[in-house]
Amino acid sequence: RVDGARLWQSLMDLAQIGATPKGGVCRLALTALDGEGRDLFVRWAREAGCSVRVDAIGNIFARRAGRNDALPPVMTGSHIDTQPTGGKFDGNYGVLAGLEVVRTLNDRGIVTEAPIEVAVWTNEEGSRFVPVMMGSGVFAGAFTLDHALAQRDTQGTSVAEALAAIGYAGEQGPTPAVGAYFEAHIEQGPMLEANGCVIGVVQGALGQRWYDVSVQGMEAHAGPTPMELRRDALLAASALVAEVNRIALAHAPHARGTVGVLEVFPSSRNVIPGSVRMTVDLRAADDAVLLQMDAELRAACERLGHAGRTPITVEQVVYFPPQPFAPQLVEGVRADAQALGYSAMDVVSGAGHDAVYLARLAPTAMVFVPCADGISHNEIEDAQPEHLEAGCNVLLQAMLRSAKV
Amino acid sequence: RVDGARLWQSLMDLAQIGATPKGGVCRLALTALDGEGRDLFVRWAREAGCSVRVDAIGNIFARRAGRNDALPPVMTGSHIDTQPTGGKFDGNYGVLAGLEVVRTLNDRGIVTEAPIEVAVWTNEEGSRFVPVMMGSGVFAGAFTLDHALAQRDTQGTSVAEALAAIGYAGEQGPTPAVGAYFEAHIEQGPMLEANGCVIGVVQGALGQRWYDVSVQGMEAHAGPTPMELRRDALLAASALVAEVNRIALAHAPHARGTVGVLEVFPSSRNVIPGSVRMTVDLRAADDAVLLQMDAELRAACERLGHAGRTPITVEQVVYFPPQPFAPQLVEGVRADAQALGYSAMDVVSGAGHDAVYLARLAPTAMVFVPCADGISHNEIEDAQPEHLEAGCNVLLQAMLRSAKV
Ligand SMILES: NC(=O)NCCC(=O)O
Ligand SMILES: NC(=O)NCCC(=O)O
Repeated sequence: RVDGARLWQSLMDLAQIGATPKGGVCRLALTALDGEGRDLFVRWAREAGCSVRVDAIGNIFARRAGRNDALPPVMTGSHIDTQPTGGKFDGNYGVLAGLEVVRTLNDRGIVTEAPIEVAVWTNEEGSRFVPVMMGSGVFAGAFTLDHALAQRDTQGTSVAEALAAIGYAGEQGPTPAVGAYFEAHIEQGPMLEANGCVIGVVQGALGQRWYDVSVQGMEAHAGPTPMELRRDALLAASALVAEVNRIALAHAPHARGTVGVLEVFPSSRNVIPGSVRMTVDLRAADDAVLLQMDAELRAACERLGHAGRTPITVEQVVYFPPQPFAPQLVEGVRADAQALGYSAMDVVSGAGHDAVYLARLAPTAMVFVPCADGISHNEIEDAQPEHLEAGCNVLLQAMLRSAKV
Repeated sequence: RVDGARLWQSLMDLAQIGATPKGGVCRLALTALDGEGRDLFVRWAREAGCSVRVDAIGNIFARRAGRNDALPPVMTGSHIDTQPTGGKFDGNYGVLAGLEVVRTLNDRGIVTEAPIEVAVWTNEEGSRFVPVMMGSGVFAGAFTLDHALAQRDTQGTSVAEALAAIGYAGEQGPTPAVGAYFEAHIEQGPMLEANGCVIGVVQGALGQRWYDVSVQGMEAHAGPTPMELRRDALLAASALVAEVNRIALAHAPHARGTVGVLEVFPSSRNVIPGSVRMTVDLRAADDAVLLQMDAELRAACERLGHAGRTPITVEQVVYFPPQPFAPQLVEGVRADAQALGYSAMDVVSGAGHDAVYLARLAPTAMVFVPCADGISHNEIEDAQPEHLEAGCNVLLQAMLRSAKV
């Protein structure tokens, strides 16, 4: 069994870097603060006897040697970048649970057949740079390294520049084989808490399509311009926000639709908005439903373009289909939870995770634990130490089954 | 008659300061560029033999002495601050038409009984600082000097600080008497052009109510958070945008409703918006209708608060009632247009103007000229030199009638 107090302490220590007044963390991908967080992880991993490697998209791999080092490693991990108003646990838990597994094996002097690796994937959140799950996406070949390196944030800084600035532009090379991949994560939703369960046995994750949408109107004076002559970009954009919500509700319960970003130009009280830039995030458990939602979004944009008065352009910037996890590993997680005496239930992940891309390369499973009120991507995100410890114990058992002692 | 070419040249010279690549002007109130524009006007006014005075809110008064300098001046003017994507004519025309009247009187060696003053009013646009029409509002006692000086822009800079920084914090003193006030302005709407008229005889201006509105929701993860559990601040805000439009349409034709600013927090693609800050601008020709619209806005905010799930707060930041202009002066403008052979029609101003506040102190009238496609508060704002010259000729005649030769 793992040391729950040590795991908790590491989470609290890492959460100091980028801590916000409201108790959350703001450590956007590839910022100086992300660099500090990475440095801390690397120091801890070396202290735990791991060798550390960084790849060309900045993914960090901390390796604990196995008896047979030629075997593909059994890998775990997650990310330490956060949302602008993020919490202490999203991603960070998966990374530090992996480190705690290594520390526990060290304490017990356990040698595994296959090596164990703990990965820190670059820019999982997709908040500063798209695509989301960038590091694992490059690793799994979902898109190219060059595509990822060329992406820019709203300030114009590229991923390549940001990686170099924090010293995490590593060596390019072929993707190594992975024996199995596990990821522990807070649920980020309300199901476990509502059902009084400690462990979520994750069946798979919703598919996602993300879009950049822009609405073109015509800025004009808010006073003398009669209502019926206006080409108000915000009026059309607002109707689209309502449509995105309606589309998701129409495909309940396993569909989601969100507009997270909406920017108005020129943004003056007495100027009719001339243009709007916004994002759309659609998710569904079924790829055909997701495609149907895509069609409905495009039809809504066409309609709300009002025959050229407020034309709307839609560019898809992220797509991955719903991803089921490996049945055998999923069953293993369920069995480990049972053997350890934890209440468990099946869940589907509404969030994307690095595990979604790793599942293209290797048998993959995830372990969820509850978070307070199901709230994540919020500074008040919270989780109980005993739940985090339970998830880490399940992770340890599941990894040992794959890595063999 | 005035010198139309000289007027045009002055407009083009002033438009160099803050010129935008798209042919407009960005010279926000009390910025360094506004300071440069003011310096140019002051130099021109002194070259035209005027004495120049600056008051405590930064209004500039260029005075051409009369035969009887004890008489209250006949005043004209407007503003030279612009919108972020503003044009060359809004406000600037009224100021430089006044300067052209002075230059014409000088050319002809005409001495008026009453002195003539050309005013440059501070922060008419209300884009950087509210309240709108700030300088004329303080002058007319619509609100206090202290209230105006304490206002801050989104960067936290106060009006007092910005005035001092550009050297236009003048002397405080009692408001001098004004004999009559005239203001020439582009129409900023489509009526003159649609009716093929050169001169708009302005009956008065719509009343306005401006609001700061904020919507409180709860930020949460766009993936695992089921649609029906969300407290999406942007969804409520979007419905309010539609409502503001509906309210104005319900009181057509002389009502307007505009949301010009809408900001989303935390503004991340995969985070349900936790809060929205937005502005509302309501206008009507009848004060009772404007009050009715206010009530409808507040009812919509109450309803869209969804019983506390997305509470909406509304703060009114600007109010002035519809303002009719002085019938005798308005008739004078109509007569002057006729005498000069210009086609003219009655119009109502949808925009607020410094004249709206001056009308509280002195008999006031405005002269409108067409602008291309009725477009203003847009970099493509345009007007024809002969129309600007015509409006300036009417202004000259109207001022001479009041100032007496
Ligand atoms: N786990 C997580 O927050 N991932 C971010 C990607 C997503 O929005 O699903
Ligand atoms: N004329 C003008 O653009 N005034 C600004 C105030 C308003 O929005 O009416």
